[in-house]
Order: sequence, then structure tokens, then C-alpha cells
Amino acid sequence: MLDVAVEEARAGLAEGGIPIGAALFAGDGTLLGRGHNRRVQDGDPSMHAETAAFKAAGRQRDYRTTIMVTTLSPCWYCSGLVRQFGIGAVVVGEAQTFSGGHDWLAEHGVEVTVLSDERCVALMTDFVAARPDLWFEDIGEVP
Amino acid sequence: MLDVAVEEARAGLAEGGIPIGAALFAGDGTLLGRGHNRRVQDGDPSMHAETAAFKAAGRQRDYRTTIMVTTLSPCWYCSGLVRQFGIGAVVVGEAQTFSGGHDWLAEHGVEVTVLSDERCVALMTDFVAARPDLWFEDIGEVP
Repeated sequence: MLDVAVEEARAGLAEGGIPIGAALFAGDGTLLGRGHNRRVQDGDPSMHAETAAFKAAGRQRDYRTTIMVTTLSPCWYCSGLVRQFGIGAVVVGEAQTFSGGHDWLAEHGVEVTVLSDERCVALMTDFVAARPDLWFEDIGEVP
Repeated sequence: MLDVAVEEARAGLAEGGIPIGAALFAGDGTLLGRGHNRRVQDGDPSMHAETAAFKAAGRQRDYRTTIMVTTLSPCWYCSGLVRQFGIGAVVVGEAQTFSGGHDWLAEHGVEVTVLSDERCVALMTDFVAARPDLWFEDIGEVP
């Protein structure tokens, strides 16, 4: 499932955007929605990878058995999304380059799996080195 | 400032949507963006009132002096947005019909003001009575 999120992150990078991708799956593995960060492409600060995947999945009545897969630890905004809608599980590609709210989600009953996927680490390490301005803007960090 | 959010909530209701409105202001009172819940109108579960106002404000580099004004206590999704981007203050029209993460925000340094605006209370009370299905869908609550 992480492959889909990595594909999304790479698509975002190819578009000149921030390389974070995500996908929302049903409990049986069916893909419900996929997306990537669109701050640069659409000038839209509200479209993080997870919110883009959530939006792409459309209106759903019950998220309890769904799985949010993301290339990077979800920020507070995206962690809040997971908690509010009762998404049952989160798979995180890596939490080395940035650590958001995944521990908080685990404390609140979400099944959290944190990987150390080398592709995910490389995507963010390279991007933050190349465009720190964009990255810090994306997480609301003021220099 | 709450008047703008109430106007947005009423506009959403007139469109057949969920009547929650929000607006993001700069510290000097300049309106940066305004919006309302668009679940029904756009089939978009990611557009809560606060995220719609945040999106409408476009890319900003520093949210520390901004004020998010919303007709209803922000859910975890929207509370996460406020925390991640370091929005300095939140004005809540009412927190009687629904209580989200505003106390959590206050604990994390956000200046939170909770009002008991009768217009806001009436909008939500009437809506939840008329369309409980839509309201519970919007906050991810499963019957």
C-alpha cells in the first residue's frame, strides 16, 4: 500500500511540489482515494497529502476500518483529520525527517505503524535540503 | 468579526449545506479568507468551514497574529489545522451544540474565546434536528 503513496509523492515532486503522498484504503485493501500535497501546484495550503487522499475518497459514512497510508508522519492538521473521522489505522512511511501527531493518534486508539522506508526518507531529505522555504511554509514554521 | 462567519453559515444553509461558517482575519482586522462547510455542495468532506476559510486566505508565511473566527467549536480536524499553522487566536461562536478541540488549543497556547452567540446556537440546533444524518456524517460519528 505504501507504493501508492510513494508514487503520489513522486508525482508531486515532478510537478514542482512538495513530495508527500498518501492514500486511503478500505479494510479489504480497496483503494478509496489517493493524492499528494498541492500547496505549490494549486496555491492551496489546505491540500496536504492526507487531506487530498481523504477528499479524493469522497463522502464516506464510516471510516473505522479504513487505513490512511502516508509517506511522512502526519502533521497536527492531518492527525486531527484521522482522529475526527475515526480512521482506524495509519501507516507512516517514515517519521525521521518530521514527526507530527502519530503518537497522539496511537494514544487515542488508532492503530499506527511507523516504517523507515528509504524511499520516503530520501524524498524528504533531498527536498528539505533543496527547498527549506517551501517545507517550513508547509508546516507553518516561521524562520 | 463573528458576523462574517454567521453570514457564511447562512449562505451554506441556503445552498442546502451544513450551516457552519468561518473567517480568517489578520491581526489588524483585515479579512484574509472566508468560507463555509461544503460537504453537500461539492461532495467534499475535506471542506469544513475553517479549512475553507484557510484555503481562501491562500498561502501565508506567518499565522501567529491571525484570528480564526468560526460559528462552532472546531472539530479535531480544524483544531489540528489551527495548531499546526500556529494560528494565534480562535473565536468560537458557540460550543453548546458541539464541543471539539478548543480546550486543547488553549492548552497549547492559542488564545481561545468562546461565545454563546444565539444565532450560532439556533443555526446548529435547528440543523441537527432537521438533518442529523448529515451532521453526524460531517463529524465522522457512526450511528
